[in-house]
Amino acid sequence: MAQNKIGKQTIKFVNRPMITGMCSVVGKKEGQGPLKDWFDVKLDDDTYGEKTWEKSESKMLKEAVMTSIKRSGVNENEIDVMLTGDLLNQLMSSAFMARDLHIPFIGLYGACSTMSQAMLLSGMIVDGGFAGNAIAGASSHFCTAERQFRMPLEHGNQRPPSAQWTATAAGAVVISDSKNGESENLVPPQKTICLTEGTIGKIIDTGMKDANQMGAAMAPAAVDTLLNHFEDTGRSPDYYDIILTGDLGFIGKDIAVDLMSDAGLSRKVLENIYDDCGTMIYEKEQDVHSGGSGCGCSASVYTGWLFRRMIKGEINRALVLSTGALLSTISPFQGESIPGIAHAVAFETM
Amino acid sequence: MAQNKIGKQTIKFVNRPMITGMCSVVGKKEGQGPLKDWFDVKLDDDTYGEKTWEKSESKMLKEAVMTSIKRSGVNENEIDVMLTGDLLNQLMSSAFMARDLHIPFIGLYGACSTMSQAMLLSGMIVDGGFAGNAIAGASSHFCTAERQFRMPLEHGNQRPPSAQWTATAAGAVVISDSKNGESENLVPPQKTICLTEGTIGKIIDTGMKDANQMGAAMAPAAVDTLLNHFEDTGRSPDYYDIILTGDLGFIGKDIAVDLMSDAGLSRKVLENIYDDCGTMIYEKEQDVHSGGSGCGCSASVYTGWLFRRMIKGEINRALVLSTGALLSTISPFQGESIPGIAHAVAFETM
Repeated sequence: MAQNKIGKQTIKFVNRPMITGMCSVVGKKEGQGPLKDWFDVKLDDDTYGEKTWEKSESKMLKEAVMTSIKRSGVNENEIDVMLTGDLLNQLMSSAFMARDLHIPFIGLYGACSTMSQAMLLSGMIVDGGFAGNAIAGASSHFCTAERQFRMPLEHGNQRPPSAQWTATAAGAVVISDSKNGESENLVPPQKTICLTEGTIGKIIDTGMKDANQMGAAMAPAAVDTLLNHFEDTGRSPDYYDIILTGDLGFIGKDIAVDLMSDAGLSRKVLENIYDDCGTMIYEKEQDVHSGGSGCGCSASVYTGWLFRRMIKGEINRALVLSTGALLSTISPFQGESIPGIAHAVAFETM
Repeated sequence: MAQNKIGKQTIKFVNRPMITGMCSVVGKKEGQGPLKDWFDVKLDDDTYGEKTWEKSESKMLKEAVMTSIKRSGVNENEIDVMLTGDLLNQLMSSAFMARDLHIPFIGLYGACSTMSQAMLLSGMIVDGGFAGNAIAGASSHFCTAERQFRMPLEHGNQRPPSAQWTATAAGAVVISDSKNGESENLVPPQKTICLTEGTIGKIIDTGMKDANQMGAAMAPAAVDTLLNHFEDTGRSPDYYDIILTGDLGFIGKDIAVDLMSDAGLSRKVLENIYDDCGTMIYEKEQDVHSGGSGCGCSASVYTGWLFRRMIKGEINRALVLSTGALLSTISPFQGESIPGIAHAVAFETM
């Protein structure tokens, strides 16, 4: 009966909503990494002039949202709904960002899977005719995440090699049902990016309990969503020019490739088209151990690097899967393992 | 361009998705309150046989979800998507509930506005043809909320008269595009409840900083959404048989009535049709100060009381607005005020 559903977990955006505005904002370390020339805003100072790290993160997300709106060629009051999330308890970054804007707001929690979760829902809302323009966004900050999930920064504790570095980064896109008036994209919009399909992820928990092994905890969820996407759509990996996971990092990426290979996907094809935002955002020499993580990691790589390359016509078909580890700050103390989740969104240029 | 949008914040469910299954699960205190005869499951022991309060809450939500599915007449694998949330950091109740089910999962954070947020999004997903059956649910537990937001229970601290009591409760509904096979509703399904419109709330922050005055912090958001709903739809309050806010409590409800009256709505009409779940779920004698709160408060009152009365034909048009206070556990320490939000969903029987 659901006419826009394909197979078990995948939905089809029949009206092909499009990305009309986007913006990425990153911290100092991210602005010195391999993707430094792609990001829109690179902070010199990760406080961003605010008195608390939470307010710094919130300001980064607000900057990403406001610039996306400006670039999409619409006014703030033409945005029908905004869907964002972050890692902070009670979504402090998102809530305090949205407080200053007068845009209907939906808060999401998907840990680091938030950016694809937000784009998936925004896509459905626009495709279903419930909004003409929707914003999807996500943020994270190294200092807010360390304080909340790990140790106070002042403690200077050591981190195991499998630990990942929470990216200080935010990204946002405007998803619209049609092209708007004047677009101020810095890159000339040679191509238009459309949302074509989305695959909603299930929670996968393989019993992993080490909170310093997030990539390993999330990799099975990413692969599960990916395999379901291929099964539902009848596609194989080479349909896409690129497949990006969110923040599996170096260890998680290797595990994902092993799992995909075990499931029968070609290692050779994967080598050419598969990558992970957590391995792309930093140089190994930047002392980030197993790579980047956080909602902002994939949000900034999609909005800063991927979508800008798609607009230029360098990439035409992309599948992104932000990956989340749904552990809580108290669940490990109660002996619980780490549930993982990943949502996929497919994009094509036209 | 957005053909299913009316006015500024309201959307129309043109295909009228319907509620095909529902369930409410409440704790001991809630099971002794004025609505005791309406709830499906009443616990004798709020631990629900679990070793931690978080796991108790998660089990309550799981029971509500599983029973809703059973009553909707479909199998677990026919549920296309599940949207739930709770008050706990990293949505521990929802994530650990969803881990045991193999249903595509979307995590939401809207503080106590979660139940209407979940129904609004589920309604759009079903109405847009992206799912045939979606689950919307929410939960809260007095003991998990006290530990996280206030004081350890063992501390036995005093609470001011304006404080509210977090309901130990969960509720879930299955929202479907059509009637399913066998329905096991305990109440004979004389009428079918359809989602007709929804109004997405904006964040409203009036500068209130007292975390023991949640009702006062949320009331302006509820009234803002309500007034926008009337403006967008061209309706007045008497269009509805009942209007329910989520958990403003006794103080917040009085403030909401004052604000609505100031905006020109008739106090007399409001007296007859407006109520607040936070004032309905407990007797004043139950020592709950300003009334009930928590995601589970409105979730259980809608699924236990309102929708069952609608199925019986006693109520035919209802507007519900769950209300959320989006403060974080650290934002008050940073001198911040409390952002409020409320989302509205309109239901009609047929």
